[in-house]
Amino acid sequence: MTGKLITLEGGEGAGKSTVLNVVRELLTARGIDALVVREPGGTPAGEEIRGVLLDTVHHGLCAEAELLLMFASRAQLVREKIRPALDAGRWVLSDRFTDASFAYQGGGRGQPQERIAELERWAADGLKPDLTLLLDLPVAEGLKRANGRGSADRIEMENADFFERVRAAYRARAAAEPARFRIIDAGRPLEAVLGDVRAAVGAFVEATGARA
Amino acid sequence: MTGKLITLEGGEGAGKSTVLNVVRELLTARGIDALVVREPGGTPAGEEIRGVLLDTVHHGLCAEAELLLMFASRAQLVREKIRPALDAGRWVLSDRFTDASFAYQGGGRGQPQERIAELERWAADGLKPDLTLLLDLPVAEGLKRANGRGSADRIEMENADFFERVRAAYRARAAAEPARFRIIDAGRPLEAVLGDVRAAVGAFVEATGARA
Repeated sequence: MTGKLITLEGGEGAGKSTVLNVVRELLTARGIDALVVREPGGTPAGEEIRGVLLDTVHHGLCAEAELLLMFASRAQLVREKIRPALDAGRWVLSDRFTDASFAYQGGGRGQPQERIAELERWAADGLKPDLTLLLDLPVAEGLKRANGRGSADRIEMENADFFERVRAAYRARAAAEPARFRIIDAGRPLEAVLGDVRAAVGAFVEATGARA
Repeated sequence: MTGKLITLEGGEGAGKSTVLNVVRELLTARGIDALVVREPGGTPAGEEIRGVLLDTVHHGLCAEAELLLMFASRAQLVREKIRPALDAGRWVLSDRFTDASFAYQGGGRGQPQERIAELERWAADGLKPDLTLLLDLPVAEGLKRANGRGSADRIEMENADFFERVRAAYRARAAAEPARFRIIDAGRPLEAVLGDVRAAVGAFVEATGARA
């Protein structure tokens, strides 16, 4: 049986790293040894591409190059890691995936949705997550949290308007595909957030009939 | 008046570097101070992308990622360097451009022509060269010459069949756009090749009515 692809999405300061570890532990406790990857990156070529994307020295990187680099990293990640794992029946947990391009390069940078959808079709091989957890919180709250974390990368240095567009695009994606998305209100205390995450992933695992 | 874009194309060992210098000198002698760029690369981000593309450590880079990286480098080069120069009336001389993607990623790797044409439209901003010199020679001859040059990069390490497809794609492009292309038989002695190059570029300069 093909493995399942679970993705984590969300803006700055939403707590993705903490949630990622909790999801991984929950899956492990259910006997599911998931491959964990991140975007951009996740392969040797992809990690070098990540460096180009996030280095603040490239502050003048155009929106088109940013979009193409994101999908170059994704194309390699899908073919080198995700597809082989899924085909072998292994689950995959990804810290961001194509929804992030719709949110950041689409909503944030204004790249057309159809352009991104076309890249999803051939560059990402049409691969869609089976479950996507969207960690949603007000932009001001997220930026306040993220600011406590040291130096910002090139994309994190954008202004609040940019992140408002990112958030709106994420929420629109979630509204359009309710069967795949779980919106988690990440503005609450951590234990409440993790409780929702555990419930959502637990229910998904049950529904797939995976190993108990 | 907008500047002109001249591109040099050709397979391995065709003598592009020598020809590039000769074209630059010829333009300088006519009072034309051309901006010289290369692909992939030509900008700080582009040169890092070039590293990912050509490093033999990335021997498993998929065709889709290769195509996307080429156009990421090109998107940035067009917006950061080529368009501003042309708009300011300056001529630009580029060591490879979009025709190379049709030849290498299209002909060589089998990426669909329509996919590349679509990327040319939005990633390369629809920019087409005004004059393209195609240095054409038999693959075996080119590989023999290139082998004398030290270590091969990731793409140069491909086999002769790959380069036959690259050459065929280049020739098909030239046949389809005879007004833009000049096919230079690069299999002859250097002085004959450079004579054709000088004649082609000289005639182009005359035809544009540029500074004498």
